[in-house]
Amino acid sequence: MNQFELLKILEEIHSSALSPAKAAERLKHLPFEDIGFAKVDHHRSLRQGYAEVIFGKGKTPAQVAEIVRAMISKKASSHNVLVTRADTKMFAAVRRASRAAKFHPLSGVISIERSKEISGKGTILVVSAGTSDIPVAEEAVLTARMMGNRVEQLFDVGVAGIHRLLDHRGALTEARVIICVAGMEGALPSVVGGLVGIPVIAVPTSTGYGASFGGVAALLGMLNSCASNVTVVNIDNGFGAACVASCINRL
Amino acid sequence: MNQFELLKILEEIHSSALSPAKAAERLKHLPFEDIGFAKVDHHRSLRQGYAEVIFGKGKTPAQVAEIVRAMISKKASSHNVLVTRADTKMFAAVRRASRAAKFHPLSGVISIERSKEISGKGTILVVSAGTSDIPVAEEAVLTARMMGNRVEQLFDVGVAGIHRLLDHRGALTEARVIICVAGMEGALPSVVGGLVGIPVIAVPTSTGYGASFGGVAALLGMLNSCASNVTVVNIDNGFGAACVASCINRL
Amino acid sequence: MNQFELLKILEEIHSSALSPAKAAERLKHLPFEDIGFAKVDHHRSLRQGYAEVIFGKGKTPAQVAEIVRAMISKKASSHNVLVTRADTKMFAAVRRASRAAKFHPLSGVISIERSKEISGKGTILVVSAGTSDIPVAEEAVLTARMMGNRVEQLFDVGVAGIHRLLDHRGALTEARVIICVAGMEGALPSVVGGLVGIPVIAVPTSTGYGASFGGVAALLGMLNSCASNVTVVNIDNGFGAACVASCINRL
Amino acid sequence: MNQFELLKILEEIHSSALSPAKAAERLKHLPFEDIGFAKVDHHRSLRQGYAEVIFGKGKTPAQVAEIVRAMISKKASSHNVLVTRADTKMFAAVRRASRAAKFHPLSGVISIERSKEISGKGTILVVSAGTSDIPVAEEAVLTARMMGNRVEQLFDVGVAGIHRLLDHRGALTEARVIICVAGMEGALPSVVGGLVGIPVIAVPTSTGYGASFGGVAALLGMLNSCASNVTVVNIDNGFGAACVASCINRL
Amino acid sequence: MNQFELLKILEEIHSSALSPAKAAERLKHLPFEDIGFAKVDHHRSLRQGYAEVIFGKGKTPAQVAEIVRAMISKKASSHNVLVTRADTKMFAAVRRASRAAKFHPLSGVISIERSKEISGKGTILVVSAGTSDIPVAEEAVLTARMMGNRVEQLFDVGVAGIHRLLDHRGALTEARVIICVAGMEGALPSVVGGLVGIPVIAVPTSTGYGASFGGVAALLGMLNSCASNVTVVNIDNGFGAACVASCINRL
Amino acid sequence: MNQFELLKILEEIHSSALSPAKAAERLKHLPFEDIGFAKVDHHRSLRQGYAEVIFGKGKTPAQVAEIVRAMISKKASSHNVLVTRADTKMFAAVRRASRAAKFHPLSGVISIERSKEISGKGTILVVSAGTSDIPVAEEAVLTARMMGNRVEQLFDVGVAGIHRLLDHRGALTEARVIICVAGMEGALPSVVGGLVGIPVIAVPTSTGYGASFGGVAALLGMLNSCASNVTVVNIDNGFGAACVASCINRL
Amino acid sequence: MNQFELLKILEEIHSSALSPAKAAERLKHLPFEDIGFAKVDHHRSLRQGYAEVIFGKGKTPAQVAEIVRAMISKKASSHNVLVTRADTKMFAAVRRASRAAKFHPLSGVISIERSKEISGKGTILVVSAGTSDIPVAEEAVLTARMMGNRVEQLFDVGVAGIHRLLDHRGALTEARVIICVAGMEGALPSVVGGLVGIPVIAVPTSTGYGASFGGVAALLGMLNSCASNVTVVNIDNGFGAACVASCINRL
Amino acid sequence: MNQFELLKILEEIHSSALSPAKAAERLKHLPFEDIGFAKVDHHRSLRQGYAEVIFGKGKTPAQVAEIVRAMISKKASSHNVLVTRADTKMFAAVRRASRAAKFHPLSGVISIERSKEISGKGTILVVSAGTSDIPVAEEAVLTARMMGNRVEQLFDVGVAGIHRLLDHRGALTEARVIICVAGMEGALPSVVGGLVGIPVIAVPTSTGYGASFGGVAALLGMLNSCASNVTVVNIDNGFGAACVASCINRL
Repeated sequence: MNQFELLKILEEIHSSALSPAKAAERLKHLPFEDIGFAKVDHHRSLRQGYAEVIFGKGKTPAQVAEIVRAMISKKASSHNVLVTRADTKMFAAVRRASRAAKFHPLSGVISIERSKEISGKGTILVVSAGTSDIPVAEEAVLTARMMGNRVEQLFDVGVAGIHRLLDHRGALTEARVIICVAGMEGALPSVVGGLVGIPVIAVPTSTGYGASFGGVAALLGMLNSCASNVTVVNIDNGFGAACVASCINRL
Repeated sequence: MNQFELLKILEEIHSSALSPAKAAERLKHLPFEDIGFAKVDHHRSLRQGYAEVIFGKGKTPAQVAEIVRAMISKKASSHNVLVTRADTKMFAAVRRASRAAKFHPLSGVISIERSKEISGKGTILVVSAGTSDIPVAEEAVLTARMMGNRVEQLFDVGVAGIHRLLDHRGALTEARVIICVAGMEGALPSVVGGLVGIPVIAVPTSTGYGASFGGVAALLGMLNSCASNVTVVNIDNGFGAACVASCINRL
Repeated sequence: MNQFELLKILEEIHSSALSPAKAAERLKHLPFEDIGFAKVDHHRSLRQGYAEVIFGKGKTPAQVAEIVRAMISKKASSHNVLVTRADTKMFAAVRRASRAAKFHPLSGVISIERSKEISGKGTILVVSAGTSDIPVAEEAVLTARMMGNRVEQLFDVGVAGIHRLLDHRGALTEARVIICVAGMEGALPSVVGGLVGIPVIAVPTSTGYGASFGGVAALLGMLNSCASNVTVVNIDNGFGAACVASCINRL
Repeated sequence: MNQFELLKILEEIHSSALSPAKAAERLKHLPFEDIGFAKVDHHRSLRQGYAEVIFGKGKTPAQVAEIVRAMISKKASSHNVLVTRADTKMFAAVRRASRAAKFHPLSGVISIERSKEISGKGTILVVSAGTSDIPVAEEAVLTARMMGNRVEQLFDVGVAGIHRLLDHRGALTEARVIICVAGMEGALPSVVGGLVGIPVIAVPTSTGYGASFGGVAALLGMLNSCASNVTVVNIDNGFGAACVASCINRL
Repeated sequence: MNQFELLKILEEIHSSALSPAKAAERLKHLPFEDIGFAKVDHHRSLRQGYAEVIFGKGKTPAQVAEIVRAMISKKASSHNVLVTRADTKMFAAVRRASRAAKFHPLSGVISIERSKEISGKGTILVVSAGTSDIPVAEEAVLTARMMGNRVEQLFDVGVAGIHRLLDHRGALTEARVIICVAGMEGALPSVVGGLVGIPVIAVPTSTGYGASFGGVAALLGMLNSCASNVTVVNIDNGFGAACVASCINRL
Repeated sequence: MNQFELLKILEEIHSSALSPAKAAERLKHLPFEDIGFAKVDHHRSLRQGYAEVIFGKGKTPAQVAEIVRAMISKKASSHNVLVTRADTKMFAAVRRASRAAKFHPLSGVISIERSKEISGKGTILVVSAGTSDIPVAEEAVLTARMMGNRVEQLFDVGVAGIHRLLDHRGALTEARVIICVAGMEGALPSVVGGLVGIPVIAVPTSTGYGASFGGVAALLGMLNSCASNVTVVNIDNGFGAACVASCINRL
Repeated sequence: MNQFELLKILEEIHSSALSPAKAAERLKHLPFEDIGFAKVDHHRSLRQGYAEVIFGKGKTPAQVAEIVRAMISKKASSHNVLVTRADTKMFAAVRRASRAAKFHPLSGVISIERSKEISGKGTILVVSAGTSDIPVAEEAVLTARMMGNRVEQLFDVGVAGIHRLLDHRGALTEARVIICVAGMEGALPSVVGGLVGIPVIAVPTSTGYGASFGGVAALLGMLNSCASNVTVVNIDNGFGAACVASCINRL
Repeated sequence: MNQFELLKILEEIHSSALSPAKAAERLKHLPFEDIGFAKVDHHRSLRQGYAEVIFGKGKTPAQVAEIVRAMISKKASSHNVLVTRADTKMFAAVRRASRAAKFHPLSGVISIERSKEISGKGTILVVSAGTSDIPVAEEAVLTARMMGNRVEQLFDVGVAGIHRLLDHRGALTEARVIICVAGMEGALPSVVGGLVGIPVIAVPTSTGYGASFGGVAALLGMLNSCASNVTVVNIDNGFGAACVASCINRL
């Protein structure tokens, strides 16, 4: 469309319907995206195209349902729809908008799968340390799946029982990207990172008490990882880790 | 120039030397500033035009001198030149570039005054609490002056001797903008803010020891000021406070 | 009045009704405001005169309503009345005091508009980053309006989609003061500050989770802004930002 | 009593009922307080003797009432009884134990006044900054009173309206000890400390939002006070401030 | 003097040399201290009158010596002079100004004793925990002495060898005010506070390493003291503790 | 068993049923524990064998009950069962699984004692400072008991009343390991550590308010303890302290 | 080799030179890598194989040179050698070991290029904000190059002059991975992340002063980035960012 | 001796040289250690008896040498002597006092071995993660040895190369107490703790940069360890860890 607008102006110059000087004036005031940023937008839709995502927290059930309805009404699109940080009330509302909606209570994710197309080249493995890290790990698993990736999961493999992790060397070495979710001391990514040669996205969780300071201990542990293939996202940000992993997996 | 480039393209369409489609393609890849952002640059030079500023810290004396030389060689310009966070070695080098350079050892500022034009509408008053806040206060005074403002200063008026401040009500009420520099508990801006109806820019300093935590105590004090006309800049940022004050004083 | 009191004493000396020594004694014990601070009070009313403001949080609905009633019963005054950090119960109580009261649920502001006089010289533009920053932005918008300013708003222009901001260059350059509200990384004021030559008041919000630490990340980002026309107020302090902006806009 | 025990042992030696060696053995195992620490206890009761204090928080209404009952059943004693951090349920229970109990809802203090004896030599003045500091200030006022002191109060004299404080110079100079309660930037003790030559006990409150960090800003401000007669107690610790003030006032 | 100025104006009215209206105008602009704040100054000199104090850090030896010279040249005064945070170079300079100057290298204090008058009513006892706390303790001892107090000291009585402290119960109970200096865990004031019924001024020191965080651990320990007669001053602030103790000791 | 598996492979080589090369291949893919880590598992069960522990927080009553049921159905085992951070609802569910279950409401511990065997060599003494530290202390007491230790307790012996602690020197010197639980300033372990020559496990609690920062003050105090036989576990971690103490007591 | 060791044991069983039981015993004590972890090592060398890296800081020049000598003496290998956090003294020593060594003073990196083989599939773009971020950016550039990647750099494109960044859209969209280095408010990665659909590795730098807290402000800004393709490494960790980028670029 | 003093008093009563009342008076004022605390001292010497320890930092070489001289001149004692945090100048001075003194430059420890007696029952194993953790590890090794323990060391076994650690299972399982020294993310104690059933003393080191915050990241990691046999000492406190380990090893 913007392309058309631009062309129309240029053609008016060509047909002398518009003087070059006036055209220059008009072009200077055209919104940027019309002439250059379409590319940006294109990139954005390319990147997120495999899932439309709504951050549920702070929205009313009605608002969430309305946005979902708008999304699934676009005929031409068959993107998956994802609502993160949702609750059962939101789910009830979304369910009325789409019978295909599923609720995942642990992670608070609502998913509407409309496409099973796989666009990621390899497997994303989500590894998590303790049972209380599972909600964040599940958010990562579901997000990565809805974005078109093959996803494997390996839960409850904390570093204090290192053999449980070592037993699954196979899964580790077969992945293309690893998401590593851990609370408390956040040591898992360092151990996992040392076992593989692929990128490890570390997600600190707010699991723990006392001096875990809501995930700060895990966050600092991961930022100081002695394994050099580890990068870090925000505390409890399973969604963000999956976005990055998905983005890498499509390279 | 950019205007000319744009016009040239448009004229080529007009003269059919360029097809609209190809022109659209070329326009899409033109650097943004060429068609829209000149305005931005213009604003930048308008804003900083009264002083060219170099942040000395981390640069060698030779580098600083070279930048100064480039600045003062622009014939058409007679902007003042300011080097902040400088030392005597930098000054020696700058002195060779310009005999007009002056060094202010307390604040570590080098100034080259080339214009005495006043562009600020009123007076900027710089108030500071203790003797150890003077370096930061002086940085603010010099910066504001070199940016074309009338500047008054009122030093050593800490809140534990409130009458010293009250004695200078006159100066407070005659200013158009106040910069308030204080370390330790950073209480001065609250008291000053309560006495006047004009904007107060608060600058916390790293003065103090122990639980002043390098200026954090003063910073927090100022952010929580119960006077509603107080805003805050970074610790020890006399330069930044003067920029904002100057920017307000030209409104 | 105080002037009269002072004069009366002095006239009693003149008429020898009072000896100079006794007068000196009495003068030394007169409350300060009687002889000098009226000016201060005058400033305070000048500054806040365009709106009487009540901080609702921590007060009962009955208390809030009573204060509102007292305010609107002053015949001579037609100031706007503003209650910040209010809720629906407070509104119900205030509504009984004044039918003109309006409640703004997003920001929790109750406003009673009694004057439409504009005293600010230019436009205050309130820019905000994400949808969850809107409550704070709305508090700023309403406060600035009730204080007699023309206010424009530009919401949902976060830095990760920079073109949305660039599309509104016009609004940015037409403002006289900008209030910039952002949570998470708090980067918006830096970008906005770089596009304009006017003062930018940055308001960090407690939006975000994990390492946003209730707005600390945004606060630090803003204090360290590389744009030199940015100052900062406390986290979530939309009211304070509007006070400062209004104060600048009347210069 | 302990004195008697000790004497008895010594007399047994004297009467040869006990050999010196065996006595040495027994003395080595006597509880310390029996031979030396009575003095300590004596001091403790001397110090707190003017009020028996119960920290209510974390106790059940029944527990609180039971302790109160035990206290007031000691015939020989007519100490005042104080319950801090109490609520209406505790008060209901305490009321059944003593009809003399009074509840102070702002500060959550229950007081049972049984003695009006004044043991403090001068007046303790409690100064507070904002309306939201009043609960802590009231806790200080009530505690100091129940400990046998004359107490004056001066509320709502924040530093942003410095003349309100200056109007009360008289009260400031007539006190023997000042307790200064303030939240937000915690600047009041510095100003008050500069106006007087007596000890100022500063109490930071958790009043405020955002970067007040639950009273940390005020605490740091007070610790860094530029007035050298200021000392600090814990955040919201009105009780502790009153204990220290009372302790000084009895010197 | 100010009194005289005021009287002169009033007498001019009386003699009709000045009209009441003009006098009112002039009075309104008289510096506050002239009519009311002399009292404040008087208090300040009363409070600090027993020692003139210079904070050496950040001043040049020449500056320090000059201030000392000015102080000791006031004929009418025989106050003691104290320079805190000084070094040997400052001492060399001060020595040339006064042969009576003594340097205390541990604490970095220069003292010039010109009066041996004791104005404090009782004894101030300075207790310190470890050998590395002695510099701060010595600053407190010297400051308290120069301010006219009898001072006793009890060093190296840390809580991990509690009997060393208990051996000196006598000294503890004979003091009128106690200053308690401790680094590391800062537990000493709690133990001392529990043994006595008098005010304990706690001074955290920056002694220690690792998680002592430059005195923060000790500071927090003292603020949370379970002994209710403990107040706290800033980290390493031996001078401030002595000021407060001296101020209490003169009550 | 794993031993058997390994032997079987090796015997197949010996009997030529398996070629060395193929055996090497199979061995390389055997789970680690099968050939080496059994030892680890063995250790784990040895260590925790005296109690099966469930961390209740974050689990549903049904989940907790189910895990308990699984544990007590292992015929061969008669380990004690412990649920920490439990509540009354969990207890109701667990009660239906085992009539032997007991609930300890202060600490939120459910215990099912099935063995009274004592495996620890000496006595573990749990010392705590204030009444609000008792929940954590009780968690430590119950955990240590269920792990097969003789446990003594000594509650309410804070450092501000040091003689209460000194009265119990006997208990201190008879223990083999001491767990020391304290909130607020966390000074108790230093004093206790100085009185004994055995290991002291310090547990900071989140008791306190204001600058106790949820246990950080106590934690820092303990980490900086001047007694060299003190080590520290996480805030409120009574369970962990008991594990370590039990582990030491079995040496 | 390890493979051979394993085979040798198995063959001894086969040839009955070793009984299965004894072999089992020996196998149980074989280092893990011999039977399973060779893969790990293999991965490690695969991953880092394009550069041997020495962390210079804390080593003596002689130690660094010795390690370099050992590395380059391996005939079969022609890996590049990298020394990070080095200084001129280390370089002098390394130079004697290899004439091919080059020193990059800004970043303190010594590089010995022995192979120009490119193993990364696309281009790694290193973007940095201010001139003082260049040392960290250069460390990233050099590390990525020595690890076999095509690397482009785009320096001095801070967010306060957003058009400088927008002018280089081309470079941004042509990269396969972006490393984004920024200090102060750390906003650059959010803006860059919003413009592209590829992974962005954010590196906070310790650039800045006051409330930048040695890079914490930038770190928090990046962790809270509103762009979902951003991950973060430790402050100043240009090396780590390049490792991750290289690791992604080889996928 | 104290025993004798006590006996003398008691015998005087027995011989009627002293009345019981007067004796009681004298006894009440006897220093505590004389009648009860000798035990404490005894404990202290028992505990540290295997090594006399001097904390060198902050003392002059002369002071250190003097203390050493005093220690080794006690004829009856043949304790080992240890100076921690020493430097070459201290060593030169100590060397003149004792030819047997050895200096360990990495850890800055001076040791004078005068006894080779082993009093610890088992082996203390010191495990450390990176090469930069070795100074702290060495301090632990030397301290533990000088206190009469068999000590083994296992250096450079970081978690990112987990097989290096697993290769040494033998050493881990043969130890009686493990000291685990690690900086950066501090994950090693969790992994080690999971592999063994004995107490693990974790020592965070200030190794690392950026978000390691001088050892805070490692400290928090260790406090939040998911292995329940881990306790923690202060950052860089190798000495303290060895004291605790030695104390456990003698049980």
